[in-house]
Amino acid sequence: MKRIPKNTLKRLPVYLSYLKNLTEEQIYVSATLIADGLKLGDVQVRKDLAAVSGEGKPKVGYDRIKLIEAIENRLGYGECKNAVIVGAGKLGMALFGYDKFKDYGMNISAAFDSDLKKIGDTYLGKRIYHLNELEEYCVRNKIKIGIITTPAAVAQNVCDVMVDCGISVIWNFAPVYLKVPDGVHIQNENMAVSLAVMLSHLGSMNEDPDE
Amino acid sequence: MKRIPKNTLKRLPVYLSYLKNLTEEQIYVSATLIADGLKLGDVQVRKDLAAVSGEGKPKVGYDRIKLIEAIENRLGYGECKNAVIVGAGKLGMALFGYDKFKDYGMNISAAFDSDLKKIGDTYLGKRIYHLNELEEYCVRNKIKIGIITTPAAVAQNVCDVMVDCGISVIWNFAPVYLKVPDGVHIQNENMAVSLAVMLSHLGSMNEDPDE
Repeated sequence: MKRIPKNTLKRLPVYLSYLKNLTEEQIYVSATLIADGLKLGDVQVRKDLAAVSGEGKPKVGYDRIKLIEAIENRLGYGECKNAVIVGAGKLGMALFGYDKFKDYGMNISAAFDSDLKKIGDTYLGKRIYHLNELEEYCVRNKIKIGIITTPAAVAQNVCDVMVDCGISVIWNFAPVYLKVPDGVHIQNENMAVSLAVMLSHLGSMNEDPDE
Repeated sequence: MKRIPKNTLKRLPVYLSYLKNLTEEQIYVSATLIADGLKLGDVQVRKDLAAVSGEGKPKVGYDRIKLIEAIENRLGYGECKNAVIVGAGKLGMALFGYDKFKDYGMNISAAFDSDLKKIGDTYLGKRIYHLNELEEYCVRNKIKIGIITTPAAVAQNVCDVMVDCGISVIWNFAPVYLKVPDGVHIQNENMAVSLAVMLSHLGSMNEDPDE
């Protein structure tokens, strides 16, 4: 498959959600319609869609259903990958129980914690294991994706263990900067960053929106 | 307060988390140390910190505690703003119960849902109200921040109601593009976008990391 720019990749789920929310009657969609709907530039939309699909029909646009399929294929939504989550607190369990991740190509197959009261519980048919069992589970099930929802203080430790278990992609919800060796990808979900940007729009702070 | 570039603003919580995780003995920190620790450029760190604090002492660096205070002030962590959440499902309740938001300048003071079984429940001393009560609550408590954790299908409706209630900043967790009038800021927390980027690192897709 040809390489795709990261910023295009990030817009694909947005196109997908937009296309899926159109009415069934909308058989064809033009790049202009999508651009207007998402407040993006016309040229950018055309360029992005060219990376996953053929050209739209002149004066008609793209076949909506085919375009949805092309984007889903490109995002790998067909082949669901297993992931583990460490930290069976409130946020961890919310993610563990969020079945929709499967629609996005990921299935959280097991949770891990060190709190003995939680070990052995099952949740939607999936189990919470002791953190000691992480390595065996990951090796046996060839897990490459780990999600961290622990308190900040233990997140680096958990991250190190994950790397030792062969995990190469880590989704970090702990509000802390994690060090990983080269070749391991960290995706930070830093709510503090979102909040900083949001609260700046309340006018108590000023930011320069044009940078 | 002088304007601050958006990208600097987004890095401030990252500096903060880094500085707070250093040991107590670390009285002074240099821009170089921070840059190394966070894999950022030296010049960028100096420029970012100059936006919130005075210069560091030559050959010594910044007073760590004072720098933490300066960043917290700049982010408005002192004055906590109330927010409401609509959608008392799993994710909604996890956020509603996440007390740490207060450390980041936001307090979710009430939740709303249209499921009669949930109305009237209290959670950590905070109440779940009927969606019908949203407007009165927001006006009475001068709420400007709304969080959407509803299913995608009803998110636009909820968003419209929030705008009518005078809410000007919306944190959207529903996987859907929302239309708002000018002057209302939408912050999308699109897990599908995070997943697309993450999964691309598993090698099933390729992206161009340099763009």
